[in-house]
Amino acid sequence: MNFGIILHVLGYVCTFEAGFLVLPLMVSLIYREFYVSPAYLAVIAICLVLGFLILRRKPKTKGLYAKEGMVTVALSWIVLSLLGALPFTIAGEIPSYIDAIFETVSGFTTTGSSILTDLDAMSHASRFWRSFTHWVGGMGVLVFILAIVPMKGGEFVNLMRAESPGPSVSKMVPRLRDTAFVLYAIYMGLTAAECVILLFSGMPAFDAICITMGTAGTGGFSARGSGMADYTLFQQGVITVFMIMFGVNFNAYFLVLRKKWKQAIRSEEVLVYLGVIAASVTIITANIAGMYPSVFRAFHEAFFQVGSIITTTGYATADFNEWPTISRVVLMTLVFIGACAGSTGGGLKVSRVIIMVKGIGKEITSLIHPRSVKKVRMDGRAVEEVVVQSVNAYIALYLVIFVVSVLLIAIDNKDIVTTFTSVAVTFNNIGPGLGEVGPMGNFYAMSNFSKIVLSFDMLAGRLELLPILMIFVPSAWQSKHGKKGKGGKKGSLKKPERSQKNVFSEHEGIC
Amino acid sequence: MNFGIILHVLGYVCTFEAGFLVLPLMVSLIYREFYVSPAYLAVIAICLVLGFLILRRKPKTKGLYAKEGMVTVALSWIVLSLLGALPFTIAGEIPSYIDAIFETVSGFTTTGSSILTDLDAMSHASRFWRSFTHWVGGMGVLVFILAIVPMKGGEFVNLMRAESPGPSVSKMVPRLRDTAFVLYAIYMGLTAAECVILLFSGMPAFDAICITMGTAGTGGFSARGSGMADYTLFQQGVITVFMIMFGVNFNAYFLVLRKKWKQAIRSEEVLVYLGVIAASVTIITANIAGMYPSVFRAFHEAFFQVGSIITTTGYATADFNEWPTISRVVLMTLVFIGACAGSTGGGLKVSRVIIMVKGIGKEITSLIHPRSVKKVRMDGRAVEEVVVQSVNAYIALYLVIFVVSVLLIAIDNKDIVTTFTSVAVTFNNIGPGLGEVGPMGNFYAMSNFSKIVLSFDMLAGRLELLPILMIFVPSAWQSKHGKKGKGGKKGSLKKPERSQKNVFSEHEGIC
Repeated sequence: MNFGIILHVLGYVCTFEAGFLVLPLMVSLIYREFYVSPAYLAVIAICLVLGFLILRRKPKTKGLYAKEGMVTVALSWIVLSLLGALPFTIAGEIPSYIDAIFETVSGFTTTGSSILTDLDAMSHASRFWRSFTHWVGGMGVLVFILAIVPMKGGEFVNLMRAESPGPSVSKMVPRLRDTAFVLYAIYMGLTAAECVILLFSGMPAFDAICITMGTAGTGGFSARGSGMADYTLFQQGVITVFMIMFGVNFNAYFLVLRKKWKQAIRSEEVLVYLGVIAASVTIITANIAGMYPSVFRAFHEAFFQVGSIITTTGYATADFNEWPTISRVVLMTLVFIGACAGSTGGGLKVSRVIIMVKGIGKEITSLIHPRSVKKVRMDGRAVEEVVVQSVNAYIALYLVIFVVSVLLIAIDNKDIVTTFTSVAVTFNNIGPGLGEVGPMGNFYAMSNFSKIVLSFDMLAGRLELLPILMIFVPSAWQSKHGKKGKGGKKGSLKKPERSQKNVFSEHEGIC
Repeated sequence: MNFGIILHVLGYVCTFEAGFLVLPLMVSLIYREFYVSPAYLAVIAICLVLGFLILRRKPKTKGLYAKEGMVTVALSWIVLSLLGALPFTIAGEIPSYIDAIFETVSGFTTTGSSILTDLDAMSHASRFWRSFTHWVGGMGVLVFILAIVPMKGGEFVNLMRAESPGPSVSKMVPRLRDTAFVLYAIYMGLTAAECVILLFSGMPAFDAICITMGTAGTGGFSARGSGMADYTLFQQGVITVFMIMFGVNFNAYFLVLRKKWKQAIRSEEVLVYLGVIAASVTIITANIAGMYPSVFRAFHEAFFQVGSIITTTGYATADFNEWPTISRVVLMTLVFIGACAGSTGGGLKVSRVIIMVKGIGKEITSLIHPRSVKKVRMDGRAVEEVVVQSVNAYIALYLVIFVVSVLLIAIDNKDIVTTFTSVAVTFNNIGPGLGEVGPMGNFYAMSNFSKIVLSFDMLAGRLELLPILMIFVPSAWQSKHGKKGKGGKKGSLKKPERSQKNVFSEHEGIC
């Protein structure tokens, strides 16, 4: 384990956090909320001092392998959240530091679950900060750092691999920094587009900015206590369309930018994603039509809610707790499917579900026709066997963490639906669940122990299980092993050698 | 597809069903319930005629390969259920044939979910028949036929593979018929032991026989409307111990019979199974202690309920719907784990869960130490990679069927807990769930469509997914393929050749 380089990256994280915090500080000045400004100023100072102390020492050896990549990313997100939670508590807006951590982890992981009972009592600065964490967390803080800081020599692609969602990471362009830059450029472009449209529609600037950042990161924190209720149907429609756009694999946008329209449109993952949305909206509209004054209104609510859940944003216009069972079960299924890989959304990811289902189909076929050598194919290419296995192993691990979490949350003795959905919505980075944690409820009444477990689940869900698990495995911290691991091959796209074959580390580029 | 041999086996199934039905006919005579005797007599006649017509023609070609084995087993269980349901409807005791099918499938698959609202109104003959289906279904009807009818030439081990639960089937002794015979001998011995003890404890003979058969098959149908409530704590304790014994891998008993005590005691699966039981009983006892007059009583209820659920029997002494969330969530977890492979219990099976968890551990280790070549080990032996993959693929398929079933049941618009647990308890062959289908409720109010879906789930759960799915795949019915499939190697325990490798068909013997 190369501790030097891990610490070095953490130094950048602290420094960048200081930069991020300048924005809510400015908001506090604009809105003359001088009672919170000192808190933000203090935390900026803490971050800068930490960053300066760490970055003063250059790491002795280079090289950041798969294992280090995961540990670094996990630690970065934990540091980011622990520091990011400080202003809330120092300013007294969230007195309990555990609550503040829950809220900040929920922000950075783009979950959107909240412990706040009265959002409107909070300063604009802190509300802005909550939403801004969504925006940074959506595309990833390390991807942001990689886009800006020139890092050479180490295999920093492992940071991006560990931070980006989905079973594979695509290097869009040969240079890592350019890839990170392209991703953030697309991200900023879409963000700006949504914000401008919302402003033109007459939404107040503060709301437009916060809501846009929450949409972009598929987070789900609201700008005001009334949630979405005060916005017009048109504004809600715009938000829905953008939620769905941010749930699309960003490769598709990159292909569009390079005018490879055909390839972009034929992406199997995006087509299935849109198909699932269309089917779910149709079913729910039919199911709830009687509950609303018009079919159009029912369609609007269904469209908004399906977009909100499958992209794991978690904005709510209706209290879907009141919807019939079939609608709630459809939404619950979307909770687990999630958005596309390579998007800002969470969940299992559409591509994993596709590979899983196709893998099952292939096995059944080969049982019936033992001599067939059919392979799982996606976007016209054969998917390697090890990727199929990695998806199945991922789902097995996902299940184990899920069951253990539900058992731990059950100690809180909430009802079954609350217990089950509180884990489902945090682990999949959605936000609101059903029961006590439904769209009109919140996580405030949970015990501190539950809040810590759910914070772990949010991080595990956002970072796709392994990075965050890794830091709990003692042998991962030994310094002697792993230097010749797979990741050592400088982001090579070649097949790993036999002894290094590992289903979890199989992040080969497809794009 | 060798239709001749499939039909031939179905002929035996019809004939044996006639034999099985003689028992409830005798019960109807003993209890002078002459209003139901004609129904049983008529169905016996139907079965005999069908069996005679089919068995008159000998199959032209021999050979029963993996694919045929699965299709045969699935069709056998469907025929068995369709014929077995007839007496209920002909005698007018379950007027709806769909309801009767649900009840019979629930019996043979040892699920124990019931649509009956007033059990005491039913004849002794039909109550006996319900419980007897548990006993036959527990160890398997084809295993029973194989133990009695000398079948040579075809690879009939594929029938046993397709019918027996767990990721691997062990041939205890070289000859298939002897293995089937040994299994049934152990099964009958344990059944007799329980029945004798219950009789000596003062339980009425009818109850003792029905309850014993329900325990042996880990089924769960009661002998009377009051369920377990009328029996003494001692009797309930005896039932609990036997439930747990029938959930043990029968290999362990075979090893005991051959005086290989050490091997029997060291079986990892059995140890984990007993460990999970001990841990669950401890947690639940602590959790519900305040609800009962004494800690002993709380322990008794916890012990009974944990034994009932993990073995997927589904007998209920307490209305665990009323227990605190942690107890219910622990029980819900046991629903999915299930009993040991090679037992009469259902669920995912303890050995699958062990292999899944160890597989995850191995992958994480190999990610941290890329040069390590550690293998998953069980009972001191390396588990082949393809078995680990087959377990993960099994779980993926299990999830897909589970989610689709929940979506279909949601159409019924019951509450979420009822919808979710009705699938969970039928698919895992438990019996009662939570909510409307809780221990004090039943499945009567479900729609016919839901009953058919749940019947499918019960069969899929009991036959471990693939056999029952296979009959819905059109290409499985083509006659040209598969003749050289893996199963063609006469029950060989060798590794399959490359082109025949299939994670689902990897049923290699471990014992």
